[in-house]
Amino acid sequence: MCAAKEEEVFPSKGDPYKGVSVSAQDVAACASTESFSQKLASSIDSWRAAGRLGVWIEVPAMRSELIGAAQAQGFTFHHAEPGYLMMSLWLGKGDNSLPSNASHSVGMGMVCINEHDEVLVVQEASGPAAMRKGGFWKVPTGLVNAGEELSACAVREMKEETGLDVTFIKLLGMRDLQLALHGKGNLFFMCQCMLVEGSSAEIRRQAEELADARWMKIDEYLALPYYQHDGAYAELARATIAAARSESEGLRRLRLANDPKDPRRGETSIYVHSARL
Amino acid sequence: MCAAKEEEVFPSKGDPYKGVSVSAQDVAACASTESFSQKLASSIDSWRAAGRLGVWIEVPAMRSELIGAAQAQGFTFHHAEPGYLMMSLWLGKGDNSLPSNASHSVGMGMVCINEHDEVLVVQEASGPAAMRKGGFWKVPTGLVNAGEELSACAVREMKEETGLDVTFIKLLGMRDLQLALHGKGNLFFMCQCMLVEGSSAEIRRQAEELADARWMKIDEYLALPYYQHDGAYAELARATIAAARSESEGLRRLRLANDPKDPRRGETSIYVHSARL
Repeated sequence: MCAAKEEEVFPSKGDPYKGVSVSAQDVAACASTESFSQKLASSIDSWRAAGRLGVWIEVPAMRSELIGAAQAQGFTFHHAEPGYLMMSLWLGKGDNSLPSNASHSVGMGMVCINEHDEVLVVQEASGPAAMRKGGFWKVPTGLVNAGEELSACAVREMKEETGLDVTFIKLLGMRDLQLALHGKGNLFFMCQCMLVEGSSAEIRRQAEELADARWMKIDEYLALPYYQHDGAYAELARATIAAARSESEGLRRLRLANDPKDPRRGETSIYVHSARL
Repeated sequence: MCAAKEEEVFPSKGDPYKGVSVSAQDVAACASTESFSQKLASSIDSWRAAGRLGVWIEVPAMRSELIGAAQAQGFTFHHAEPGYLMMSLWLGKGDNSLPSNASHSVGMGMVCINEHDEVLVVQEASGPAAMRKGGFWKVPTGLVNAGEELSACAVREMKEETGLDVTFIKLLGMRDLQLALHGKGNLFFMCQCMLVEGSSAEIRRQAEELADARWMKIDEYLALPYYQHDGAYAELARATIAAARSESEGLRRLRLANDPKDPRRGETSIYVHSARL
């Protein structure tokens, strides 16, 4: 039980949508399920009186016994990460208009062409690509982490998987899979990278992820049986090789200064047609 | 307690990464926390013996009392949606290599230019854009739903917010915000739409979301004070108007036939440079 009257309501942070958030720290500070329930009920009354439309509450994974208590007061699951479950409650009239959870995973494929008109290709060590018969040559690919800039992912993945130091050049195209893992979408970009000038073109393959890696003549790559099909990946491979060979096509990255008023946002970039900048 | 020996292990579905999944239905069928715990322990032994590397278990929101029991056997939070919490357990050696949760939300901005060289612009009714002084004119925007194709989002949002029937033409550019809501990234695309031939250009504004909507001469739009700044949104607006006015620039959508072997994936599209298709 809380002693002082000021402590009967959770400390909270407002947002521009008339929402209010309670941190994992403040939830973790509750001594028991009972004190959490009481404090939450008083807080809801106070937020409702203040005209708040939505409430976000972050329940730390180590206090998962509080989840049921929040559900008893109308909170539902919003999203979760390994350390916490975010629960939300709509206090407004009409339909719940709280923004939904992250909707997509994002992948990157790196088209890296050297001065001999060869493209860097790999064979995966595991997963669906590894199970194709005859060895499936593809450009290196990787998953963009939450909070990671697209071009940074391309540079990082190339270094991790092949040991090569590359510069991001441009986005060449994208595949939109409506339903990938867990009912979420997947956006898979293909970008062009170039070896950093003066750096080694020698491949140091990451053995856990790649069964093989090599430089292959572009014509040989496009002539592989798989790329004769009309599936999304084959179409994307052909179209992006064409765009990589063109000087003007593709979306170039324009890196912008961080907004000093909003440090949360990290780095911001835009990808646009270079000819117009 | 389960009667027959076959029922002491959860039914499960394998995946190409040597993972195994237990459905919400099978979790919900457990009579008590005790029977869930016992069945889970036997199942883990069996999956481990079978060389499985990872386990996914979907705990329905209405059975949230089972979350703690799964945590007691090493499961951690992976992601959540309003109806369930997905928990996972890594059984392999070395680092957990289970794919992470969806990492990005995805937005769309619709650049719609009519035959009078006017662009459709709106003022938001609420949120940060509504709070800018002097009324902030911008192109209509919306959030892509999980499982929704990008171009379909553009068509839907234009219809919902302005009543206009449009066709998707091409992607013009993109902004990458590393840290948007809840530590996730946000990809915001700008695309070009056109009024469906013969359809009305009369705006029927959605009053809940929009304070105002109108057709504005492109030169007037680009001369608005906001678009003289050098922030991401202003740069993107200028670059995408330029690309919308150009015949050749942008990524066109190529809709692909569904893979009959994988109906889960829904519709698949690729966005590439049209000149090369």
